[in-house]
Amino acid sequence: MKRMNIGLLGIGTVGGGVFELLKLNTQEIQRKTSTDIKIIVVADKNISRAKEIAGTSIEITDDAFKLVEDKKIDVIIELIGGTGIAKDLVVKAIENKKHVVTANKALIANFGNELFELAKKNNVTLAFEASVAGGIPILKSIREGLAGNKIEWVAGIINGTTNFILTEMRERGISFVKALSEAQSLGYAEADPTFDIEGIDAAHKLTILASLSFGIPMSFKDVYVEGIKTLEQKDIQYAEELGYRIKLLGIAKKRDKGIELRVHPTLIPEKRLIANVNGAMNAVVVKGNMVGPTLYYGSGAGAFPTASAVVADLIDISRSSKVPSYGFENSKINVIPIYKIEDVICGYYLRFRVTDKPGVLAEITKLFGDKKISIDAMLQKEPQEQESEADIIMLSHLAVEQEINSIIHAIEALAATVGKVIKIRLEDLSK
Amino acid sequence: MKRMNIGLLGIGTVGGGVFELLKLNTQEIQRKTSTDIKIIVVADKNISRAKEIAGTSIEITDDAFKLVEDKKIDVIIELIGGTGIAKDLVVKAIENKKHVVTANKALIANFGNELFELAKKNNVTLAFEASVAGGIPILKSIREGLAGNKIEWVAGIINGTTNFILTEMRERGISFVKALSEAQSLGYAEADPTFDIEGIDAAHKLTILASLSFGIPMSFKDVYVEGIKTLEQKDIQYAEELGYRIKLLGIAKKRDKGIELRVHPTLIPEKRLIANVNGAMNAVVVKGNMVGPTLYYGSGAGAFPTASAVVADLIDISRSSKVPSYGFENSKINVIPIYKIEDVICGYYLRFRVTDKPGVLAEITKLFGDKKISIDAMLQKEPQEQESEADIIMLSHLAVEQEINSIIHAIEALAATVGKVIKIRLEDLSK
Repeated sequence: MKRMNIGLLGIGTVGGGVFELLKLNTQEIQRKTSTDIKIIVVADKNISRAKEIAGTSIEITDDAFKLVEDKKIDVIIELIGGTGIAKDLVVKAIENKKHVVTANKALIANFGNELFELAKKNNVTLAFEASVAGGIPILKSIREGLAGNKIEWVAGIINGTTNFILTEMRERGISFVKALSEAQSLGYAEADPTFDIEGIDAAHKLTILASLSFGIPMSFKDVYVEGIKTLEQKDIQYAEELGYRIKLLGIAKKRDKGIELRVHPTLIPEKRLIANVNGAMNAVVVKGNMVGPTLYYGSGAGAFPTASAVVADLIDISRSSKVPSYGFENSKINVIPIYKIEDVICGYYLRFRVTDKPGVLAEITKLFGDKKISIDAMLQKEPQEQESEADIIMLSHLAVEQEINSIIHAIEALAATVGKVIKIRLEDLSK
Repeated sequence: MKRMNIGLLGIGTVGGGVFELLKLNTQEIQRKTSTDIKIIVVADKNISRAKEIAGTSIEITDDAFKLVEDKKIDVIIELIGGTGIAKDLVVKAIENKKHVVTANKALIANFGNELFELAKKNNVTLAFEASVAGGIPILKSIREGLAGNKIEWVAGIINGTTNFILTEMRERGISFVKALSEAQSLGYAEADPTFDIEGIDAAHKLTILASLSFGIPMSFKDVYVEGIKTLEQKDIQYAEELGYRIKLLGIAKKRDKGIELRVHPTLIPEKRLIANVNGAMNAVVVKGNMVGPTLYYGSGAGAFPTASAVVADLIDISRSSKVPSYGFENSKINVIPIYKIEDVICGYYLRFRVTDKPGVLAEITKLFGDKKISIDAMLQKEPQEQESEADIIMLSHLAVEQEINSIIHAIEALAATVGKVIKIRLEDLSK
């Protein structure tokens, strides 16, 4: 098997996530790449914490500059952040002909132009999917998936902290100050939340989205930035009365003479999908001239979602060009059984008609009880005037389909039941 | 400039869209690929229609089998559809060492396994992004963007016709039969709608999604399929009372002993984003073990969205491996101006407080009228008890920001106005 040796700069939250992901999904990744992607050296100021996360079987150093020159390393993952030492290290790594994968939006938004030049000159890849919207593959979608389009505009909820705060303000009617302090106590906002709430983090990401959408240089200094600090509760309410939600959006829009680049609180019609993106989630709408509007939604931060994007970049590098048709190597396609419909597990909506007699409901709920299947909700409609029959609707909890089928047969066999039971499956889709 | 010569099989709706896209976006695509991607031969049974669409300057033939052997052609686009002649042509094209791009879901779902083998043997690419969910880059997202994950499940609204019908049934309270006939008269459903409403089209697409998600062979024959023909209006209403929407979902889910593969009407909690995907739009939720749930939304059909996916595949092939950092070639990065915030154009929410005197509103609306800026909505709140001041909220139509700023100054200068005007920007995001 091919081998790809990784040097990891910084093993904090995200670094730990990448480490964990590569361990957990080793086999699956090898099915997709025929490559053994392995972190072999970690550099971190905090050696004891690094040892705790990475174990003692791999090399740990506090000399990051030595690591980026290490001859046995093919790819550097930079997770230090900021534009100080991280920049020096990325430059050194590239000059040493190493591919670099980074989640560092500030670095790319401020110094992307020169770093990409340098990478090209040294014939290596500088990959940065994780720098925007965490685990959502938004950069790949713009750069490759929508490459046939002229992009007309991009608009995104690209900062989870502020979206969490705005969601709390709306749903619970609390002030910005209260929502911020709750976000801090829940770990959604940092002790110093300036970068997030003043829109700077979003502006970094918007800079990157705009460059890829329009093929323009990174233009961070030209982004207009307005945060959410001054947003009042009453404006959220008035907006709602008028049919709108307020979101902190990053917007990049092409016009005849140039590009609009701006981050600010924005009213959006409530029926737009992106208006309904709540909590700490991210979403980006990309409007292509051919495809129309498309939307990408998911977790924009956190150890594992960010790691997902970092590792996608590693896999891209390992595949160099040929992505296999299935995404898995041809020899690794598994033939595994497909469940028969009787054996699938989901929730169920059942609707049936019963004559309005005492004791019927007890009989029916007992059928569920006997099979140990919970009823999540029930609706009994009043019989229409001059009728003695009523519709009953039941939502079951997760169950194997054949168990539900046998309950259905039993319900249909009851004296009180009129006609057939209508069955529709139910999926929660939350986890 | 590099040249990529295309042979197009079938110039119907989608073929015409591809033709149009390559013409409209030539320059943008060359900025991204440094390749001149050109359709040089079209094969179609209907030569006069083909000439109408493609003009007379390119070769048009009714002998598709000759085209796939044509030595000057690098890539074949197959847009004939079905598994008859289309399959023979794709096989022949591959055997003649031509890359193939197809939108043909039936072909891939039924014969993908053998066709990918054949493509591998002949060292060419068989690309099929357009076969699932039209312009949404969902296959690339699964295969590359989420490659670091074990996919746990995929659930999608992957048939626009049935989603349109279900949306009409819910929003207008009409029956399936009525909604279908309206869909037909609007062109959303075909004269023979069997493939769509019985779930077969969705099953083809689900087959493909499952193969890429789990690395399993195409297993179309094992998909459980249930359409929407028997769905009654009252079940849509009852579901709604219970907080759910009914959608035709394709679901692929990994369980301990195998995979669930099923297409059927499904209740989904109304607060899930995918429950709010309406009309003919498509959306797919992919749950990775690291990234969590991610969602991809856009147009699932139509000439241009499908063409967008076809051309993305062409661009992938032309780029072979090196996707440039910005998605655009380094030499083609444009330096174009970024608008100052005073010059951006959007809608505006203005809130201010006025003393409750006659004539104030007229004065204010005149300020808008003088600048020819429309007011889209207005909200005047009753003064609180014992107060003589009231909040006024106005939503303006699109306007240049400095015009709005001057209106704001004028409002603030009015004798009746108390304090400052709060301004929040508004974006419609629909087009």
